[in-house]
Amino acid sequence: MATVKLLSDDELSSEARAVFDDIRKVRQSDFINNFWRALAHDPKTLRRTWESLKEVMGPGTLDPKVKEMLYVAVSVAHGCSYCIHSHTASARAKGMTAAEYGELLAIVGMAAETNRLVTALGVPVDQAFLADAAD
Amino acid sequence: MATVKLLSDDELSSEARAVFDDIRKVRQSDFINNFWRALAHDPKTLRRTWESLKEVMGPGTLDPKVKEMLYVAVSVAHGCSYCIHSHTASARAKGMTAAEYGELLAIVGMAAETNRLVTALGVPVDQAFLADAAD
Amino acid sequence: MATVKLLSDDELSSEARAVFDDIRKVRQSDFINNFWRALAHDPKTLRRTWESLKEVMGPGTLDPKVKEMLYVAVSVAHGCSYCIHSHTASARAKGMTAAEYGELLAIVGMAAETNRLVTALGVPVDQAFLADAAD
Amino acid sequence: MATVKLLSDDELSSEARAVFDDIRKVRQSDFINNFWRALAHDPKTLRRTWESLKEVMGPGTLDPKVKEMLYVAVSVAHGCSYCIHSHTASARAKGMTAAEYGELLAIVGMAAETNRLVTALGVPVDQAFLADAAD
Amino acid sequence: MATVKLLSDDELSSEARAVFDDIRKVRQSDFINNFWRALAHDPKTLRRTWESLKEVMGPGTLDPKVKEMLYVAVSVAHGCSYCIHSHTASARAKGMTAAEYGELLAIVGMAAETNRLVTALGVPVDQAFLADAAD
Amino acid sequence: MATVKLLSDDELSSEARAVFDDIRKVRQSDFINNFWRALAHDPKTLRRTWESLKEVMGPGTLDPKVKEMLYVAVSVAHGCSYCIHSHTASARAKGMTAAEYGELLAIVGMAAETNRLVTALGVPVDQAFLADAAD
Repeated sequence: MATVKLLSDDELSSEARAVFDDIRKVRQSDFINNFWRALAHDPKTLRRTWESLKEVMGPGTLDPKVKEMLYVAVSVAHGCSYCIHSHTASARAKGMTAAEYGELLAIVGMAAETNRLVTALGVPVDQAFLADAAD
Repeated sequence: MATVKLLSDDELSSEARAVFDDIRKVRQSDFINNFWRALAHDPKTLRRTWESLKEVMGPGTLDPKVKEMLYVAVSVAHGCSYCIHSHTASARAKGMTAAEYGELLAIVGMAAETNRLVTALGVPVDQAFLADAAD
Repeated sequence: MATVKLLSDDELSSEARAVFDDIRKVRQSDFINNFWRALAHDPKTLRRTWESLKEVMGPGTLDPKVKEMLYVAVSVAHGCSYCIHSHTASARAKGMTAAEYGELLAIVGMAAETNRLVTALGVPVDQAFLADAAD
Repeated sequence: MATVKLLSDDELSSEARAVFDDIRKVRQSDFINNFWRALAHDPKTLRRTWESLKEVMGPGTLDPKVKEMLYVAVSVAHGCSYCIHSHTASARAKGMTAAEYGELLAIVGMAAETNRLVTALGVPVDQAFLADAAD
Repeated sequence: MATVKLLSDDELSSEARAVFDDIRKVRQSDFINNFWRALAHDPKTLRRTWESLKEVMGPGTLDPKVKEMLYVAVSVAHGCSYCIHSHTASARAKGMTAAEYGELLAIVGMAAETNRLVTALGVPVDQAFLADAAD
Repeated sequence: MATVKLLSDDELSSEARAVFDDIRKVRQSDFINNFWRALAHDPKTLRRTWESLKEVMGPGTLDPKVKEMLYVAVSVAHGCSYCIHSHTASARAKGMTAAEYGELLAIVGMAAETNRLVTALGVPVDQAFLADAAD
């Protein structure tokens, strides 16, 4: 599979190499996963995506583990198998327990079910849920 | 909108009324949102959905606020406007701050972007991310 | 809403009018719903879509009511509110009972839930389910 | 693939074993497909999902074959390859003919096409399709 | 994978063979990709799909390369791996450069991100964007 | 609708105001659409999103009109009504003709149909479409 060849370290442009260097530094690991090797054909998108990811997934208010779990939840809903595998691995690396993973899965499945019931029924939003009402 | 009439308390079957009673008891609030009023036409699905939701969203390992944020993330990815509004309201009621909400949105958007890049490129899953490798 | 103006009968090109005439004849009703009025800006797509729909939804092996229920199920999964409303109305007009509608909704929701669990877990297809195995 | 190891019969907890026993009894077959083996890590979700599925897909008003076809349609729209394979196999086992399968596919494709046209054009729902109008 | 066997040229019905002949003639190539070999079980859908595709992707106003890029974009958003691979190959065959492909990917990812932010926030459509306002 | 209040110019933080100033300068228009007014609650995401959008949709290899049409196509597939309306308006402002719009819609619909047929049939990717084969 893949619509592009995954670039090895030897095949990188200098701009792409600089991004790989930063990924290795920030993650304190030599491992570069396939996503970045596929993106490396376009150093501009590689850089912009990495810079955004670093900002979004970096230190903030939410627990890093929770951030990865949110990433998994969205990836499941989008059906992105690669993303599910990589972020499930990250969530585990950041401390997600088997019990937490079980609850994550249960919520993702439950939300899918109620989302479809709501959509099928065309349920109108309650006034109480609108931003103005909350103010 | 709506493909069914939303049932008022006066229009409920006795089975549906029993579910409404339990919702009110568990939530300690008299307010029943439109989702349940639409589902009430089919007491069997109303009951099963409520029992599942109570189990999935009830006490467990994850913070109730985090559970609601995961629900919002999935609902956004599915494009269910009603669900987004109701669970955003719930997450706020359970303590989600503006900063946490900002991070949630940023992750949902970022995951959508990288999900599509990965999918477009057909990136193969790294061996390191497979369950067997993790063992 | 709408990104184009809905065309009234007076605003139709002759090609679009011919399609409207056929819709009215086949459906034995003067009512033309908004979808066709929006498509009428492009008579070529209007004609091709109507001809395909007529072939796909016309007499065949499956019960016309079941066909409409399948259409609703897909429209729910795609989150197309208009399509859900129009095909739910069609399914009812073709005899879908409240009990059948309840079962349809329950299946759509249940499938959404298990679909997401399967996707999250990356469950590999059992050999028994492949076409070759079935032969 | 898979984000968890598929559990063999020897690796089940007693709660998971009890669910597997019921699946075998209800289906009158010794075969347990991979979905349940992946879910078995979380006996609570395993049990709840099986109980719901048994209720939703069990005897009711709709033909069991039609129920499986609706399941396939939703699974296609969600892009769940495993679910498509397993429920297409089930639909065939319950009597879906090649002609019925052809019509199912044609409807799923057609609905996808018109769903996107409607969404692109932002077509407003006709008054005639609202629940109140139908009453 | 596959829920049906892919038909070889020797296994075609005469109706399916006629469609394959036309595909070969129009494309001026002997190669028939798997999609058509899977559809060939249902000559009616095979024919209708090919006739529609020929009309939609044939000569018109838009550059053939742009048409294929639009096809790729939609296929990515739907998560159809086969379609992404086949239409990316077609777009390249019709002249899509690496730079254009890079821009296509960037837009697809960016649109996914803003789509989700908008959906999460429930942003109401500006009056200026409605068709009536544009007139 | 909306899960947050849309901020008026008077309610902006200084960071958000700086982004609005840049939007007005780049677009050479005083009009700020609702998306940015909703995002303005979180100046960090507002800034990052605007900077990315400026880079992705700015001058490059593809025609600006084609870029907007790709944006529309993705937004339709994601069912984001706001995004469809805003980018259809942008595409028209950048020269998209009625004929081009008709072809865009036809491709989006056609791709949706074949995407679902392919997914339903589980069609395996032809060797000829893989990146390695193309090399």
